[in-house]
Amino acid sequence: MGMRKRFTLARRPVGTPVPADFALVEEAFPVLGDGEFLIENRFASLDPAIRGWLDDAPSYMPPVPLGEAVRATTVGVVAESRNPDFPVGQWVLGLNAIETHSVGVAGGFTGPIDPAIVPSPTNFLSVLGAVGMTAYFGLLEVGQPKAGETLLVSGAAGAVGSLVGQIGKIKGTRSIGIAGGPEKCRRLVERYGFDAAINYRGKSVEQLEAEIRVAAPDGIDIVFENVGGACLDAALMNLRHGSRVALCGLISEYNSPAKVGARNLWQLIVHSARIEGLLVRDYLPRFAEGAGVMAGWVSEGRLVFDEHVDHGIDNAFGAFMRLFEGSNDGKMILAL
Amino acid sequence: MGMRKRFTLARRPVGTPVPADFALVEEAFPVLGDGEFLIENRFASLDPAIRGWLDDAPSYMPPVPLGEAVRATTVGVVAESRNPDFPVGQWVLGLNAIETHSVGVAGGFTGPIDPAIVPSPTNFLSVLGAVGMTAYFGLLEVGQPKAGETLLVSGAAGAVGSLVGQIGKIKGTRSIGIAGGPEKCRRLVERYGFDAAINYRGKSVEQLEAEIRVAAPDGIDIVFENVGGACLDAALMNLRHGSRVALCGLISEYNSPAKVGARNLWQLIVHSARIEGLLVRDYLPRFAEGAGVMAGWVSEGRLVFDEHVDHGIDNAFGAFMRLFEGSNDGKMILAL
Repeated sequence: MGMRKRFTLARRPVGTPVPADFALVEEAFPVLGDGEFLIENRFASLDPAIRGWLDDAPSYMPPVPLGEAVRATTVGVVAESRNPDFPVGQWVLGLNAIETHSVGVAGGFTGPIDPAIVPSPTNFLSVLGAVGMTAYFGLLEVGQPKAGETLLVSGAAGAVGSLVGQIGKIKGTRSIGIAGGPEKCRRLVERYGFDAAINYRGKSVEQLEAEIRVAAPDGIDIVFENVGGACLDAALMNLRHGSRVALCGLISEYNSPAKVGARNLWQLIVHSARIEGLLVRDYLPRFAEGAGVMAGWVSEGRLVFDEHVDHGIDNAFGAFMRLFEGSNDGKMILAL
Repeated sequence: MGMRKRFTLARRPVGTPVPADFALVEEAFPVLGDGEFLIENRFASLDPAIRGWLDDAPSYMPPVPLGEAVRATTVGVVAESRNPDFPVGQWVLGLNAIETHSVGVAGGFTGPIDPAIVPSPTNFLSVLGAVGMTAYFGLLEVGQPKAGETLLVSGAAGAVGSLVGQIGKIKGTRSIGIAGGPEKCRRLVERYGFDAAINYRGKSVEQLEAEIRVAAPDGIDIVFENVGGACLDAALMNLRHGSRVALCGLISEYNSPAKVGARNLWQLIVHSARIEGLLVRDYLPRFAEGAGVMAGWVSEGRLVFDEHVDHGIDNAFGAFMRLFEGSNDGKMILAL
């Protein structure tokens, strides 16, 4: 009987996670029950949302239990099976955990995938996965872009943000991105085709507010918000009448016990504007539709995407923390 | 030539307004130009929104200029006229100022009213005016209540809030009100028909959050927010999936230079919920429709409303400040 390695939650992080909040444990493969199958995970998706699942707070999913492997979407191959729908050798995508092997169940959040249709199976964790669907449905359904409108994206060099700016361009928006540092800003314009880029590092709300005004003198119609904090407050001071803020993430405060939220909320009143939360799993029934469109844009060369793959479950902590340091270039993936 | 008294802005308030921010000036009637008419104001509407117009900040209207009378909606009678559409003796409603006499212009924000159709001409400043239309369109269009849903109203004993709770009941919601003090809470239930009332005074966000949970164990579908601060943060912790926050006002922070906004904004993400700003003038073309429905409900006895009338322009400051002290019982009106 083989052994599996699991990246488990040892205690709930307070503020910024530290290595001691987690443990790497090794244990025997679980015995499969009827209908179950063992997934050999090849890749785990590392997402900011995971940070929220570590807290004992009301959310759309139960917190990761202490001592359990940290929840994550994975791509893997069925290695052992007591389920005829999931034969050995079948590639699968599912909501599992950061662990070398997961147990799948019939009717669970795991489904078959065909890696032959994409350049790399990791693409199911980036452009064709939850990240891509977040960008696609978040911008189109919550942001409701119209040709000629101005779109502001924070965290624009990130996995979701870089796709949002490009989808906006495809739909005819002027896309402005906010990112951390001159390198990322250059990539926004040169690689992802943003019309303008703003470096937020070291800047106050007032400075960011002024820089957004220079980039968009007539104001912003759609904000795609991944960051929160100063980025969001500065964006709110540049809204147009009837504008929409698609609230995808607030990564700037995920590691802070004191929540900041949106201080300039009053601007919603004076501009009849709205902030709407975006939970990609609401669009689960439409993922095939969205992935089809995105795959088409990729094959036509209209959409580029990047993946940042770190290797080895031993490096899970450092790879996860890149999301908060901003030291990843593209969708953060851990190869297991 | 007669004289008029005007309540003018002497300097921009910093934080809570003080008497020295204003001046009472007396001056000769202006000479009417062609098409103009002199309105003898009988009543001025005192609203929290006026506080925002005193700041030099980007808003939906220009700030009140220094030295000018403070902008307010008034009801009055034409006293002198060089406009055949506004004969002497005609009752009018318009966006004028806190002053005994205003000058109306053709094509301005002043229109004729017929006081014979209502018990009191002040009703055009309360249930049939912007306050009533804010409650009506704000709840129905932004809040989109459905029968059986749970509605939470902050500032529920106020002019707008008391109407919102009742309109909700007419539309089949369970209405819960938040107000300041046991007297107001009693009035919410006994006079306005709320199903439950919560006194926010002296309570932390966590306490309010827990009290809302007791009153609405399955969560809130619609928040009608007039107050902000702890009320809003506590409400956000009780949202249901797909809930709507109609953001009408943030009176708790209008006198605070440091804006708080919504700290628990992340709850919008986990519940796919939204906060939408409400500016009643967006619904100006539909005011006749809304006023007609509201007048019908009043005449059927399904909607009650209260007006708090203070007398004399010399008392303008104290009357205005009641809005922030919460010492008014009903729509705040100044008789001139």
